[in-house]
Amino acid sequence: MSDLFRKHLEKFIEVDDSEFDAILRYFTLEKVTKKENLMMAGSVCRSHFFVLQGCLRKFFINEKGIEQTTEFAIENWWLTDNLAYEQQGTSEFYIQAVERSEVLTISKPSQDKLLQDIPKMERYFRFIYQRAYAASQMRIKYLYDFSREELYFHFLDRYPAFIQRIPQYLIASFLGFTPEYLSEIRAKKRS
Amino acid sequence: MSDLFRKHLEKFIEVDDSEFDAILRYFTLEKVTKKENLMMAGSVCRSHFFVLQGCLRKFFINEKGIEQTTEFAIENWWLTDNLAYEQQGTSEFYIQAVERSEVLTISKPSQDKLLQDIPKMERYFRFIYQRAYAASQMRIKYLYDFSREELYFHFLDRYPAFIQRIPQYLIASFLGFTPEYLSEIRAKKRS
Repeated sequence: MSDLFRKHLEKFIEVDDSEFDAILRYFTLEKVTKKENLMMAGSVCRSHFFVLQGCLRKFFINEKGIEQTTEFAIENWWLTDNLAYEQQGTSEFYIQAVERSEVLTISKPSQDKLLQDIPKMERYFRFIYQRAYAASQMRIKYLYDFSREELYFHFLDRYPAFIQRIPQYLIASFLGFTPEYLSEIRAKKRS
Repeated sequence: MSDLFRKHLEKFIEVDDSEFDAILRYFTLEKVTKKENLMMAGSVCRSHFFVLQGCLRKFFINEKGIEQTTEFAIENWWLTDNLAYEQQGTSEFYIQAVERSEVLTISKPSQDKLLQDIPKMERYFRFIYQRAYAASQMRIKYLYDFSREELYFHFLDRYPAFIQRIPQYLIASFLGFTPEYLSEIRAKKRS
């Protein structure tokens, strides 16, 4: 399963067998069941997760008590509360498995040590954060520019497989509307 | 003026005199007047800007023809359309000086070469993108979680000097409401 991680790394940096074995030692492999929490709001954000198989989501509970999903991570994506992780502070987010999943988990001290011991990982993580930041900037643009309905169709157009895979109520939670409103939009589209 | 950049670099990596001179060679220094455009929507995003002095903003023009500001950058901040910059593609954004500013400008080929020639810059940019990404994730949470009025007070609370410095109509453009609505909120606060 960790071969997937190696393939992913090799998109950015060259890694030989002994280097890859060395890199893996900084991680632990975790298997989680559907709806299992990997992180709870109110606790210190200790881990950074790389999805080998399955799907995770990050959400917070808003003032009305509703779960607001802000991110999903499928295979080859990293997920954490980056601010709380860097500061080793308390997070306002939950991270939960949407499906049965396998993840590589690294702690902040281990990630720092990995970067010191194997400097080419600086290049790898520089790419990861650079692309995640670029995607995040575009998402902010969409949040300003699109109505919620437009956001849904944009998302459907760009990530059709994703829409198939994720339960509808979580898509609604991600787009910031009720499952009922999502059904209405979908019905309107079909008619 | 470029001493400011050196001080900034040294928060993340050690740099001696000759290394700093070598690093600077990848950049050009630009002086821009207030309201001068550094990048125009519809053109290829060729540059990444580091603000030595002054303030830049990034905005797009929405369907209604209104300028929607999505980011500001003051001293020690980087600014570009990261997605278009990485792909060397066309940007939907403008980058404009809010004040008379001095910026260090680097092109994508130069930044790639800088990272190859001086590998410790991987570590520097890894930190830059990591922090920018973390801040961007929190901003997405606020966009979901806060009303526009709450966004303003949150911003006022966190960045009082910034609110003083930036013209009110640009603060309104950043928060996504009209200057009139911002005046109303401010009046309500005072009463």
